[in-house]
Amino acid sequence: MLIIMKKGSTPDETARVSDAVRALGREPERVVVAGRDAIAALGGGAPLDAGRFEAMSGVHHVVPLAPPYRLAAREARPAGTVIRVGGSTIGGGSLFVVAGPCAVESEEQIVATARLMKHAGANALRGGAYKPRSSPYSFQGLGPEGLKLLVRAREASGLPIVSEAVDDASLDLVAEHADVVQIGARNMHNGALLKRAGRLRKPVLLKRGIAASLDDLLMAAEYILDQGNGDVVLCERGIRTFSQHSRFTLDLSLVPAAQAASHLPIFVDPSHAVGRRDRVAPMARAAVAAGADGVIFEVHPDPDEALSDGRQALQPQEAAELITQLREIAAVLGRKTEVAR
Amino acid sequence: MLIIMKKGSTPDETARVSDAVRALGREPERVVVAGRDAIAALGGGAPLDAGRFEAMSGVHHVVPLAPPYRLAAREARPAGTVIRVGGSTIGGGSLFVVAGPCAVESEEQIVATARLMKHAGANALRGGAYKPRSSPYSFQGLGPEGLKLLVRAREASGLPIVSEAVDDASLDLVAEHADVVQIGARNMHNGALLKRAGRLRKPVLLKRGIAASLDDLLMAAEYILDQGNGDVVLCERGIRTFSQHSRFTLDLSLVPAAQAASHLPIFVDPSHAVGRRDRVAPMARAAVAAGADGVIFEVHPDPDEALSDGRQALQPQEAAELITQLREIAAVLGRKTEVAR
Amino acid sequence: MLIIMKKGSTPDETARVSDAVRALGREPERVVVAGRDAIAALGGGAPLDAGRFEAMSGVHHVVPLAPPYRLAAREARPAGTVIRVGGSTIGGGSLFVVAGPCAVESEEQIVATARLMKHAGANALRGGAYKPRSSPYSFQGLGPEGLKLLVRAREASGLPIVSEAVDDASLDLVAEHADVVQIGARNMHNGALLKRAGRLRKPVLLKRGIAASLDDLLMAAEYILDQGNGDVVLCERGIRTFSQHSRFTLDLSLVPAAQAASHLPIFVDPSHAVGRRDRVAPMARAAVAAGADGVIFEVHPDPDEALSDGRQALQPQEAAELITQLREIAAVLGRKTEVAR
Amino acid sequence: MLIIMKKGSTPDETARVSDAVRALGREPERVVVAGRDAIAALGGGAPLDAGRFEAMSGVHHVVPLAPPYRLAAREARPAGTVIRVGGSTIGGGSLFVVAGPCAVESEEQIVATARLMKHAGANALRGGAYKPRSSPYSFQGLGPEGLKLLVRAREASGLPIVSEAVDDASLDLVAEHADVVQIGARNMHNGALLKRAGRLRKPVLLKRGIAASLDDLLMAAEYILDQGNGDVVLCERGIRTFSQHSRFTLDLSLVPAAQAASHLPIFVDPSHAVGRRDRVAPMARAAVAAGADGVIFEVHPDPDEALSDGRQALQPQEAAELITQLREIAAVLGRKTEVAR
Repeated sequence: MLIIMKKGSTPDETARVSDAVRALGREPERVVVAGRDAIAALGGGAPLDAGRFEAMSGVHHVVPLAPPYRLAAREARPAGTVIRVGGSTIGGGSLFVVAGPCAVESEEQIVATARLMKHAGANALRGGAYKPRSSPYSFQGLGPEGLKLLVRAREASGLPIVSEAVDDASLDLVAEHADVVQIGARNMHNGALLKRAGRLRKPVLLKRGIAASLDDLLMAAEYILDQGNGDVVLCERGIRTFSQHSRFTLDLSLVPAAQAASHLPIFVDPSHAVGRRDRVAPMARAAVAAGADGVIFEVHPDPDEALSDGRQALQPQEAAELITQLREIAAVLGRKTEVAR
Repeated sequence: MLIIMKKGSTPDETARVSDAVRALGREPERVVVAGRDAIAALGGGAPLDAGRFEAMSGVHHVVPLAPPYRLAAREARPAGTVIRVGGSTIGGGSLFVVAGPCAVESEEQIVATARLMKHAGANALRGGAYKPRSSPYSFQGLGPEGLKLLVRAREASGLPIVSEAVDDASLDLVAEHADVVQIGARNMHNGALLKRAGRLRKPVLLKRGIAASLDDLLMAAEYILDQGNGDVVLCERGIRTFSQHSRFTLDLSLVPAAQAASHLPIFVDPSHAVGRRDRVAPMARAAVAAGADGVIFEVHPDPDEALSDGRQALQPQEAAELITQLREIAAVLGRKTEVAR
Repeated sequence: MLIIMKKGSTPDETARVSDAVRALGREPERVVVAGRDAIAALGGGAPLDAGRFEAMSGVHHVVPLAPPYRLAAREARPAGTVIRVGGSTIGGGSLFVVAGPCAVESEEQIVATARLMKHAGANALRGGAYKPRSSPYSFQGLGPEGLKLLVRAREASGLPIVSEAVDDASLDLVAEHADVVQIGARNMHNGALLKRAGRLRKPVLLKRGIAASLDDLLMAAEYILDQGNGDVVLCERGIRTFSQHSRFTLDLSLVPAAQAASHLPIFVDPSHAVGRRDRVAPMARAAVAAGADGVIFEVHPDPDEALSDGRQALQPQEAAELITQLREIAAVLGRKTEVAR
Repeated sequence: MLIIMKKGSTPDETARVSDAVRALGREPERVVVAGRDAIAALGGGAPLDAGRFEAMSGVHHVVPLAPPYRLAAREARPAGTVIRVGGSTIGGGSLFVVAGPCAVESEEQIVATARLMKHAGANALRGGAYKPRSSPYSFQGLGPEGLKLLVRAREASGLPIVSEAVDDASLDLVAEHADVVQIGARNMHNGALLKRAGRLRKPVLLKRGIAASLDDLLMAAEYILDQGNGDVVLCERGIRTFSQHSRFTLDLSLVPAAQAASHLPIFVDPSHAVGRRDRVAPMARAAVAAGADGVIFEVHPDPDEALSDGRQALQPQEAAELITQLREIAAVLGRKTEVAR
């Protein structure tokens, strides 16, 4: 961290900054740049908080020389994190496809979808047993019963399952039944839940909050990594902007940005971002072309009758065609395209 | 809710929509408008989810004839909610001022601040014992010890206390010790926590999420109201926009919009929004001039040494002058300006 | 347009709305829906302005039954607009690639780039002679001299040229020399310039403003179409959001949304959106995978020495490899991939 | 400007940066900070473009030590710009109130409004003769005839007039007839028009673009100042965000931010921001409480019949009461509240 003082700051102000650097266990190095004092904080340890210094009298600007995260940083694992899920691989050049309904509704629905998606070449099945909803009057998921149905769908299809946890109780249950635990966008800033997820021995799919910066997302991942769980998969799912033609604005440029900044794999969820069936396939293709390590999208055997978000679910046949295209685009980029059948 | 079909939609599509209306316990009323079918859903009950119908084949547009919340709606309590806290009133034309440090740091710090703010005319003391932070490496609050210090500050000053809860465990503890329980912006979408707050018998200060619409905020309040706790105070604290001259963009036009839509009082927190000491007073004044029922801002006896967010804390003398101005502006608007001394 | 009155609106208010509909040359049709009055405006003519009615006393909600544009609407030309430029085609399933430097700097620079891009398989050359800049102190382009150099580059390479106009004078000059006239994001709301562009007999590449909705963009196109020039190509180039990892947020979901709403082809400019060389290729590939009719990106023979925006320019060899990948991705989507060589 | 190199950058990369600094007429000063090379650009002249250096190989971060504008900077005129308009003053602690209809519609309408606003204590009359509109089918103003009616309103009331110019031709005409020339939000990025406004001898009211940062706004002002016209008044009028309860989000924290960064006075236009009559007064009051040098809002003798934006116009009596409150709030802040009657 480099703290540049204002032109005309006093020696006393500079000294207070140096003291604050020392108080955080770093060594202050004083230089003079363009006639101003500047103090570099040398030495290792947890990243410093720029806000601590911006607040101080006489400070012009604080330049971070390192990112605010360290375990999630690309430098911490230059070759990239690779995670095994079911018979497939996340990261390392593979393309991992997760498909399934927004919410688990019945055994018939989830088992049929799982079989169709296995046949279509998906790598995992998604399905929500706990649904965080904006309205207390909306369907909130089948809960533990939904998790049992997901287990039956895994047994019937062989596909590993991805499901969301929304609080402490559901986190423990989902971790017990699912292969990948999802932390949704609404909980990306829930530090208590992130820490608990960091003590699991299951991979975590961490969705970006709808107003989270890349740094915010990687800091959320850092909460998990810091507790010892290194198997985190990031996921872009759309941000909130003024643009109203789409439910959220899918920010695909996050994909190469995250891959440059971090060693963690990154997925894209086009379904929640666009919120409309006819826009899902173009955005899923775009995600793979942008280099995403995986995509997660919604499929429902009868979208018109879905209890939750049916308007954004693909029909099974559309999903199958899409998966084929996604693998072909991955091949254009020179990526591995084997499917675990 | 009015569901307008596409030009050329089929009778079968219209019939499926009518069936879906009936399945939700409403009576479909079919009309023809500009040569199109339209179906109104008649009858009471929980607000319907527009998404359920937008998904359906043949639907052009869904027009909500009522908001998605009902307990939080102005119509539910036209005179407005009024809440007693300490010897003061929130709502009903009063101006309620909450001041104090971002985080409780020591007995000396919080007791001194409480006495100064009592003398300056504040109605309550704020202070965080649990601090949700973006970084796992930042100071996260003193926890239960912080709550004890708040209680001592209340005893020393007579000011009621406002403090934030971040999860189930802290919610119970904060509710036990504080006079008002704050749910922060990061947890506005945390349905599980909101429901638990709805079972408390303490007022809840509910902050707007940084990407939450007015409807989202009122739906979050609805979660609390629906559990039986009617004492909810809304709070605008800045939204995330492209604009970078301020940490967040304080959206003061939410104040009259919320007052038109809901009977719940609304506060404004300028400190977190602007993130800089010299911008806090102008925005606090603007909040009162816009009609806010209260303001909550940060004060620290020695901002340069604050462990958290010192750059946005006012010095006690600045805070005292500000409170005087706020009451004068409220008087211009014809509002009650008595202070509970 | 359907105007839904408030519950309890008066007959007089309904009558005033009916009168206003009639004053705009439409026939009011009165229906009763869910116990409220509603008035549909029947008959053809220029789209009505919803704001005219939202202002009126007693009005609850105004539902547009048609978009605010008609010439740009998909219905006006269901098969889609196809434009010939040089030996290539824009629209109709073709992929059109425009490459070249941000600004024309010298004959050597632009001629060399043109030859390399022709060889790489581009369909047209871009190069700015007039550069709208945020700072009056930045390089603003070579002006008429730049246009002459572009003509020489066309002669040397055979590639048609695309160049931007910024005001009346430059519009006339660019239209005289270039094959496609670009209206940049800063001028998308410049009605006077749009009208003048509508009287040209050259195709217009119309970039989306950084805060323009899809409707705004199509209304800007409508200004051009309304003057008789039907050869408009839309272009997504990033919008301004809170997200700071990229200069702008490339909103690729605009591509399928625009194609559903309008018959006009749509391009994507990844260079200005991401602002960094290493992010251009992923976003260009994503644009094609999302179904864009073309891409326009920046190439510079020596990016480090560019007078304008060098940090986002590809090197010629990178550009050539990218164009090959773009055509392969287009082939996966079943699109025409012939190149006019 | 301070250019900080990456850890491990090569001496050759550092040398290229030094050369580029020299090529722009500055003296490079090399220092070593935290084991990295850094180069400060010393000496005066036009502000440097950070982008020029961010593009270069080996560069980690560019820190501007001065803002990108210099004529608009507070340092250029620490006491603040004060402008005389009619018998009143803009800046210097005065409160300047501009009121009038969105568009000039008829002599009766504008003259009546002018007289009422004079009597209510306004300092100037607004009225558009040229209306930039999103739709080519919307009313675009009376043009030169509208300007003549404004002149008659000035003669009848004694109020100076503020009117908008949208292109070269209208700029000359507006400057001839009006007392203050407005450049609207849509043209804030129109460099050609800004330069022409810089050669006028009339004050310019420069509105912030709906996606413009504070720096963008001050750079637009710099275009005008750089041509010799120092009488520029900034104006906040709402930015585009995800928030949909208001037409735009009024960003009042721009007021103190602009006053800290620049010597130019700053106004606020609440009418266009909120787009609804019942929200205008709260936001106008908030603007004054935030310290704005003036407000500009819309008034119409018969809002229901307005040809443009009637839903946001106050009735004359409401406007008169508002102006009284605004002066009372200014008095609380210790500002001059004399009215030129």
